[in-house]
Amino acid sequence: MRTLDEQAIRDLALGATLLGTGGGGDPRVGTLMALAAVREHGPVTVIPPEDVPDEGVVVPVAMIGAPTVILERIPGGHELDLVMEGFERLVRQPVVATMPIEAGGINSTIPIVLAARRGLPLVDADGMGRAFPEVQMVTLGAGGAQAWPLVLADESRNVVALTDAADNASAERLARSVVVGMGGSAVVAHYAVDGPFLREWAVPRSVSLAVGIGRALRDARTEGRDAIAAIAPLCGARRLFTGKVVDVKRTTAAGFVRGRLSLSGLDQDGGSSAEVDFQNENLIVRSGGEVLAAVPDLISLVEADSGQPLTTEGMRYGLRVHVVGIPSSPLWWRPEALRLVEPRAFGYDMDPIRLEDAQ
Amino acid sequence: MRTLDEQAIRDLALGATLLGTGGGGDPRVGTLMALAAVREHGPVTVIPPEDVPDEGVVVPVAMIGAPTVILERIPGGHELDLVMEGFERLVRQPVVATMPIEAGGINSTIPIVLAARRGLPLVDADGMGRAFPEVQMVTLGAGGAQAWPLVLADESRNVVALTDAADNASAERLARSVVVGMGGSAVVAHYAVDGPFLREWAVPRSVSLAVGIGRALRDARTEGRDAIAAIAPLCGARRLFTGKVVDVKRTTAAGFVRGRLSLSGLDQDGGSSAEVDFQNENLIVRSGGEVLAAVPDLISLVEADSGQPLTTEGMRYGLRVHVVGIPSSPLWWRPEALRLVEPRAFGYDMDPIRLEDAQ
Repeated sequence: MRTLDEQAIRDLALGATLLGTGGGGDPRVGTLMALAAVREHGPVTVIPPEDVPDEGVVVPVAMIGAPTVILERIPGGHELDLVMEGFERLVRQPVVATMPIEAGGINSTIPIVLAARRGLPLVDADGMGRAFPEVQMVTLGAGGAQAWPLVLADESRNVVALTDAADNASAERLARSVVVGMGGSAVVAHYAVDGPFLREWAVPRSVSLAVGIGRALRDARTEGRDAIAAIAPLCGARRLFTGKVVDVKRTTAAGFVRGRLSLSGLDQDGGSSAEVDFQNENLIVRSGGEVLAAVPDLISLVEADSGQPLTTEGMRYGLRVHVVGIPSSPLWWRPEALRLVEPRAFGYDMDPIRLEDAQ
Repeated sequence: MRTLDEQAIRDLALGATLLGTGGGGDPRVGTLMALAAVREHGPVTVIPPEDVPDEGVVVPVAMIGAPTVILERIPGGHELDLVMEGFERLVRQPVVATMPIEAGGINSTIPIVLAARRGLPLVDADGMGRAFPEVQMVTLGAGGAQAWPLVLADESRNVVALTDAADNASAERLARSVVVGMGGSAVVAHYAVDGPFLREWAVPRSVSLAVGIGRALRDARTEGRDAIAAIAPLCGARRLFTGKVVDVKRTTAAGFVRGRLSLSGLDQDGGSSAEVDFQNENLIVRSGGEVLAAVPDLISLVEADSGQPLTTEGMRYGLRVHVVGIPSSPLWWRPEALRLVEPRAFGYDMDPIRLEDAQ
């Protein structure tokens, strides 16, 4: 058990942005939100999954919607109060802790805001070990957890609760409809789980990992060292491609941002090109007819000079970037999980490949 | 207080279809649903607004969505159980009765199904005295009632509750998003009100009126008398135009069906033409540059030979119809109500006109 200090919050937001693979929100916004909350309400304690009580529920909170929209709508704390009050009306069990549902510059820090406001601990775990765009793409769901009750709130005090659903894919469809009705983004609480389930199906230590990655990126930048080499021992990161952004196609519709990033190779990749497809998060990177990496493994982009992780909405012409591959949590390779997030789940007609087998 | 017998249910569905002005659902479906429910669960008692207790809530239930979709998806009783269970979890008051939120072939009879299943009385009143397409277009809302808590359910056991909203127009936007996510139609419970409020803001006696209109239409047909003359003493109906349907433009999108019906005049209207615009319900009828009638007054279509009321989804080329105008409930002419349903609320740049002033 330990307390997140201000530097740890900054490092968490930075490292989680790398693990967010393009989605999960902007780290500057996430940092400011969390710092303001702990300054007002006091520090937040992080507990390992083993310390979560067997009784009571852990309720993850997050922003849901297209990153391009989330960037323009910084959630206030009162939306978190609304979703939690809505949740507690539906679940007649005490909420004993919160945690991120996914990694991301906002989605790893927004649970800190909730934890600070309500005096709850933050569990050192999450539901993806990365970010994915759809409600059913959560390790907890692969293990049998229901996405509902699922509560959504926006800044206009609209609160919508999904109280029963046919399955988690239906929950995604309905939640997405509501998100669109709320203007493209919302605060969500869903996938409440208890301690024993969380210990089996949540991705463990992902908050600590994000803090460690963020610290390593910061140190590497300060000391002028290579960012990927600095984080490789923590998460198995490897460079897949280095290039200049020559085109970004991006459409925000139906609650998602979808598109393709085109890179013209630099340095050792000079003369070649690569494309990264994304749906909120980066899904697949290809070069010269070869798949360099694909979901569920992580495909992240960092600015070549600074090592700064980049989000989907931060992509722009002329940026010089490294494409980084990181092996996903082994939970995603369990068959009941893989079917939710393999390339075919996103419309790619190919078998899953592991990062070590690619190229 | 009286019990609805099978003939009264048939007459109610027929008369309510006229008052539904194109929307509110198909009377055959509505009749079958209600008859099956009372045969299985026993008869339903109708009580006048004066007999509603001051304490406890009256919860209206209805189908929401595009009539073209509702026609294809006959709601089973279990969706009603789901919305009421969802409602009762949110509203910690006893539900003492139900009523229609609007008139229509299904929306006047679906509360009978709920009443029969749960042994509740049906209040002889509704929230419009006709049908309107949007959630905020309810006399109860004009009087200050909140549309929320609003609970939606579909046949796949998906249940969504709007527990807080900025205003009733936001409730419409969010509910419509959910309806689209549910495939275009859903069962809804909303606008729970108590006895004193209902007595001030619900349209009184509208169930009885629909039964009376249905009986008069049936008698006129049996006896070969004119349908409009038969119902005029009950509701002030008058013939506005008689013609043949020469075109129906209809688009189902975003949870509504919108379009325009074109008529070529017959009999005393021979040589002229008329157009009826609709958004689920008929909004305005124009002929030769003149507005014959417009919302909030009722514009209904009946088949010329049989006097059968026609719904939006039942319109087709070649039908010979009378366009019938009926003055709306005086509640709609209160200023706080009129702004919700006047022609401008539907995008028509014109002041409201009363039926007696038109032409």
